[in-house]
Parts: sequence; C-alpha cells; structure tokens
Amino acid sequence: MQLNHARLLNSLKQLAQFGKVGTGVNRLSFTSEDRAARQWLLEHMRAAGLDAEIDGIGNVYGRARGVDKAVLIGSHTDSVPKGGWLDGTLGVLYGLEIARARNESKALPDLGVDVISFADEEGSYRALAGSLSFCGELSDTDIESARNTHGISLTHALAEAGYAGRPRARVDPGRHLAYFEGHIEQGPRLEVEAQKIGIVTTIVGIRRSRITCTGQADHAGTTPMHLRKDAGATAIKISANVLERFAQAGSALSVWNLGHIVFEPGAGNVVPSSAQVLVEFRDPQQEVLERLESEINAAVAEFHGQQGVTSEVAHLLSIAPADMDASLVKTIETATQQRAVPALRMPSGAGHDAMVLSRYIPSAMMFIPSIGGRSHDVAEDTRQEDICLGVDILADAVELVAQQ
Amino acid sequence: MQLNHARLLNSLKQLAQFGKVGTGVNRLSFTSEDRAARQWLLEHMRAAGLDAEIDGIGNVYGRARGVDKAVLIGSHTDSVPKGGWLDGTLGVLYGLEIARARNESKALPDLGVDVISFADEEGSYRALAGSLSFCGELSDTDIESARNTHGISLTHALAEAGYAGRPRARVDPGRHLAYFEGHIEQGPRLEVEAQKIGIVTTIVGIRRSRITCTGQADHAGTTPMHLRKDAGATAIKISANVLERFAQAGSALSVWNLGHIVFEPGAGNVVPSSAQVLVEFRDPQQEVLERLESEINAAVAEFHGQQGVTSEVAHLLSIAPADMDASLVKTIETATQQRAVPALRMPSGAGHDAMVLSRYIPSAMMFIPSIGGRSHDVAEDTRQEDICLGVDILADAVELVAQQ
Repeated sequence: MQLNHARLLNSLKQLAQFGKVGTGVNRLSFTSEDRAARQWLLEHMRAAGLDAEIDGIGNVYGRARGVDKAVLIGSHTDSVPKGGWLDGTLGVLYGLEIARARNESKALPDLGVDVISFADEEGSYRALAGSLSFCGELSDTDIESARNTHGISLTHALAEAGYAGRPRARVDPGRHLAYFEGHIEQGPRLEVEAQKIGIVTTIVGIRRSRITCTGQADHAGTTPMHLRKDAGATAIKISANVLERFAQAGSALSVWNLGHIVFEPGAGNVVPSSAQVLVEFRDPQQEVLERLESEINAAVAEFHGQQGVTSEVAHLLSIAPADMDASLVKTIETATQQRAVPALRMPSGAGHDAMVLSRYIPSAMMFIPSIGGRSHDVAEDTRQEDICLGVDILADAVELVAQQ
Repeated sequence: MQLNHARLLNSLKQLAQFGKVGTGVNRLSFTSEDRAARQWLLEHMRAAGLDAEIDGIGNVYGRARGVDKAVLIGSHTDSVPKGGWLDGTLGVLYGLEIARARNESKALPDLGVDVISFADEEGSYRALAGSLSFCGELSDTDIESARNTHGISLTHALAEAGYAGRPRARVDPGRHLAYFEGHIEQGPRLEVEAQKIGIVTTIVGIRRSRITCTGQADHAGTTPMHLRKDAGATAIKISANVLERFAQAGSALSVWNLGHIVFEPGAGNVVPSSAQVLVEFRDPQQEVLERLESEINAAVAEFHGQQGVTSEVAHLLSIAPADMDASLVKTIETATQQRAVPALRMPSGAGHDAMVLSRYIPSAMMFIPSIGGRSHDVAEDTRQEDICLGVDILADAVELVAQQ
C-alpha cells in the first residue's frame, strides 16, 4: 500500500478552510461550515471508490466495495468553538488516505477499509451523538431531547441540514474486524517524553462531583467570627482537604481538577451563604475512581455540620473507563517497533468515539504529539513529519490486521 | 426634655414609605425616592424650629436657632438596594425627635441640637460623600469622578436633583461640642448577649487585599498532574493557609472574610489559568491590621512559584480605625447606668459617618439591637421598645453634655 503524504496534508488543509478562524477552525456541528465539510468529505470518499452516504444523524460513512470484512477507520470533523484544525479531522483523513491508497494499489483484496466521520462528537447538541447512533445507543427520544446552548433542538438541526429521515448507519460486527481512531494527543506527554506515537490502552473513566456548602449570609464587619456560618471558609477547607486526599489516594495515572468554584453572594463584605465546588477526576481503573469518589465523601463528611455549615456532595457524572482491544494495542505497538518509532502505551485522558465503538467491535486508538500539548484552541498544531509518521503507523497496523 | 415616642415611631414609619419595598426600603442616593425623603425631612426640620437647608451635596442640615453651641445628631437616610427601614434613618430621626423635644420644652437654653442627614453614606456614587463634604474632605474633583454602577456621574445626579451649585454646609468645631450617631447594630452581638445598648468605642479599620494566582489553562483530562500549572489549586491552598494564619494572628475582635473567589476559565474540564481571592479584614487596632496584612503576604510568599504558578497580592483598601471620643463614650455609658439599661462597649464592625466626623469634633456612636443581626436587607428590624429606649438614652446623653 503506497500512501501519499502530500495528498493527506493537502486534504487536511482543504478541510481546515471550512470554518477557518486564524490557524484553527470554528466548525460546530450542523452549522453551514460543518455541513460543507461533510459534503466535501462525502465527495472525496466517493472519489476514493467508497460507497458513501451521509446518514440520518449526519455521520459520513464510506464502505469499501466487494469485501465482507473491513477495518473501520475514523473520528469526527466537527470542532469546539475556535478549535484546532487537526483534532478529530486527523483520524478521519487518516482513514480516507488509507482507503485511497488501498484502492489505488489494489492492496488487501480481502480486507476493506471503511471510513467514518461521526457527527457531533464535541457535543454541540449531544456529545458522541454519531458514534452512539452508529452503535444503536441513541434513541429517537435522545435526539428529540438534545439541544444546543441556544435551545435549538438536534431534531431541528438535522432537518435544517437535510439529514432528517435518512436511515442511520450501523456498526456491523460481522464485517468490522477492528475500529482504528487516530487523534492528536491533546496533552503534553508525548512531546515531553520525546515519543512519536501514543498507543492508547484505555480511555479513562470520568467522574464529576459537586460539593455544596450552605451557611448564612451576614455582614462581614459586624458579625463576630464565632457567630458566623461561613459557607466559603468551609468550602475552602474541604477543597484543600480533597486536594490532599487525592494526592494520597490517586494512582500514578489519576488526574483531577477543581475547575469551578463559586461563592454566593460573592461580595467582599458579606459572609458567603453558599459555596459550590466542582470536582472532576479521571482514571483508567474503575476501582480507583470509586476510591477517589469515597475520598470526596469523606472530606465532605469531615466538615459537614461544623460552624453551622451543612456540606453535601452530588455525584453528577460517571463514565466508565473503556479498555482498548489488547490485541489491537499490540498490533499498533508492533507497527511502531517495525519502524523503530519511539512509542508509549498511555491512557487517553479525554473521551473519544472509540469509547463507544469498543463496546461492540475490537477498537484501538493512536495518538500523535500535540505541540505544547495544546488542544481545543486555534493554537493546536502538530509537526507535518509527525502527521505523516502517524498515517504510516496506522496503515502498517491495518496491514498487520489483514495478515492475521 | 419630654420625648414623644409615638411621634418618633410615626416619623420612622412615614419615612419608610419613600421607596418602600416589602418591609424595607429601596432608597438609593439621589433617586426620586431619596430626594422625596430629603424633602420630607427638610420640612419636618423646619417645623421643629430648625434653620434647615439641603446643601450642595444633598446633606439635609438643620441648625438650632439662637445658640452658639450645639450637639450635632445625625446619620443618613439613603439605603442600599432593598435595604432596611431603620439603618441610618434611625439616627437622623433620633436627632429630629430630640430637637423637637428640646424646642417644645424650651430645654437646654444654651445647647442647641443640630440635626443632619448625610448624603450617600451607602456609596451609590461615593461612600460617605455627605460627611466627607461636611468635613471638607470631598473636593470638586472627587465629585466629578464619582459614578454609580450605571456610569452616571455624581455631578449629573446633583444637577438632576437640583442641589448642584448650592453652598456646601461645613462642620463648625467652634459650635459643635459633640457628634452623636445612633444606628442599628447590624450584627447579632447585642441580641445574643442580651444587651440593649451598644456603646461604640472604635469604628474598626478595614483592609482589603486581592490574591491573584496565575498558571496555565490545560485540558484537565490529558495533562498529567505533574505538568500542570494549576492556579486554582494554589489559590485553594493559599486561602486555607490564610484562614489558619488569621485564626492564630487575629485579636479577639478581629473579623475576616474571604467573600469572593473566581477561577478562570471556570470549566470543570479545564485546569484554572488564574484565580482571584478577595480577603477583607477588620480590627479596632492598626497594629493588628498590619499583622494580618503581613500574614497574607507570608501565605502568598509561601506558595509563590510552586508548581509553576505565580502568586501575588494587591492591597486594595486601607481605612484606619477611628476611635470614638473617650469622654462621650463615658457620657453614653453614664446615661445607660442611670436607667440601669444593660449596655456593652463594643467596636463598630461597619463604617459610619462618625468615622469622618471623629477627625474634627468629639464623636460617639450608639447601637440598638438588630433582630437576628440582620441588616442591609428588607428583613432588618428592631423591636419598638428598643427603638424608644435608644432615643431616651441618647437624649439623656445630650443632657449630660449640657451639664458639663
């Protein structure tokens, strides 16, 4: 299979014109920019010899002709507001380039390369909508209830786009031997550790908890300290306690973030009547997530009721870790070893469509380095040689699957 | 001097009609409600036999006739948004009632009772504007630069009110033997300690500092903990440290409040790039304020530069403590002892016009209990018997001054 690096880079640059904003893209799901990008992709899939359609959820899905078995390669082409030009687009165009190369060179006669761009991975309306639909996990009711921040329904957006009423494509475990997703790392590890390929072992589980402290607003000058019910002071103590507990109880791969905190009424001269702290934490292992959640509970329990302030915690979100297929992980690793490319097994700290696909077909992800670890920002970028190295490794992995 | 409690209560209720909102008042400086209240007060001062005018800053000032010496009694009639019906109004109408009673009963022939309502104590445009003007501490430039939250200038507001261009009344140390300000406590101490009168020894000094931590925004899933520059975590640690240090270093009368905290960008899945924490603290003694400020500096220095986060502190505000006149404190205390009224020497944790006046003439303040310690809220209230007891004590204090 003969890859064409120049063609890949050219396609990436062409897609980056849709919604271009500075060095990045503004291509929120189902906007005219996103739809134009989907149309471009549809036409280029067809030109590559794929049977391609945009389905009822907006997935652009191209199937190889004349085969019973195929690998599926893809990701997403929608972006966050003012996002990066590569992000998910990279994984989709990796698939397109490998499909083009296979068809041109008549390689892998018994293993097709199907390509997919999943709709709304970034969740303008519903995160992972395309892959959930593809796997049968998105009901009509889910679609009807999904809305963007302007209150526009996903149903309306699909109708506007002309996608409504079309059949929705589905994964085919009888056909799809593997799902491969290439993606930029979105973090600094590969760059810092001088690695070229990240081989994802697990997409980490994510949990989110909200700690709420409730006291009483009082004049901060006239109310003696011992008569206060200071929700803010309690929230600070609990937050500091959570940070200490997590540093002890987390695994080497755990990450956590207290990203949002708000005091009410929020005035310098009023004792806070309430305080909320958002705690988000991730780990590849379910048992570690359980442990961290229980540490939050313990921190809240430790301070609950002190100084007349009640403290409670709501666990808002729990997404289980998704292990990648061990055999495919090994396959990608073999591909890197064959070319003596420095590679690192690592968890993905961010969610991806592969998380959903992994529940139905053997799935794997591969990262290439992000310059400065930047992502979800127009400053996101990757060196051209790293982009090209990534598609080489992924194509090698597909050939290894064909040999198995 | 024969006080008329029913008349006092009736006047308080009449003034509470101007800007009435529920059980409180909405009487921001120079609004039509505030101006109408000033006009009412002007007319009632004149009816009480005072030479009264509204001056060029909006102070309503009524002078006793035919005397060279007088005590000045007052406070303010403007309110915060949805404020209490008593607050400063109480002190002004205490003055009006005592002036009425003196004039009716021909008491204290050699000591007049002057009455004043200072403009904009609450600072819709400029906190304490009226008392600062009365003491010669408010320049024309200060007036021109003062603006409310809508960007309207104080100059404009004064012109709209019809006050612009009038002479501004001034304190007269040759005439004014004393300034007395009655006020609700705005805190819970008198009620909690079953006291009826608070005799203010000092209006506490106030300082305000802003701690700013600056790190770097990163994806909270994909950035390993050791590569983060988490401004939020640092702000939490510094805040907890400040709370511990203040608990050690504060005096028995110190109060402090971390009332406002904000993380940027403030998302659960983004490492905070910056965090700001507002620290306000008060104490009757300058040296304690100095010590607390140095504790903030030490806390910030302890964490500055750790984990790539810079931390700095800006000291935004420093108002010196204002001691009340020792002789007048004793005078009020004697008045309470004469009636065997339970009274407490205490600092004022809030700022008042007396803070300014005390720099020019002997000044004293007297508190009556606030139910539940509530203030700056429509729920603010005081029992009628406590309101009446307050005016009795204050009138007694004026008579004691006359005897000296």
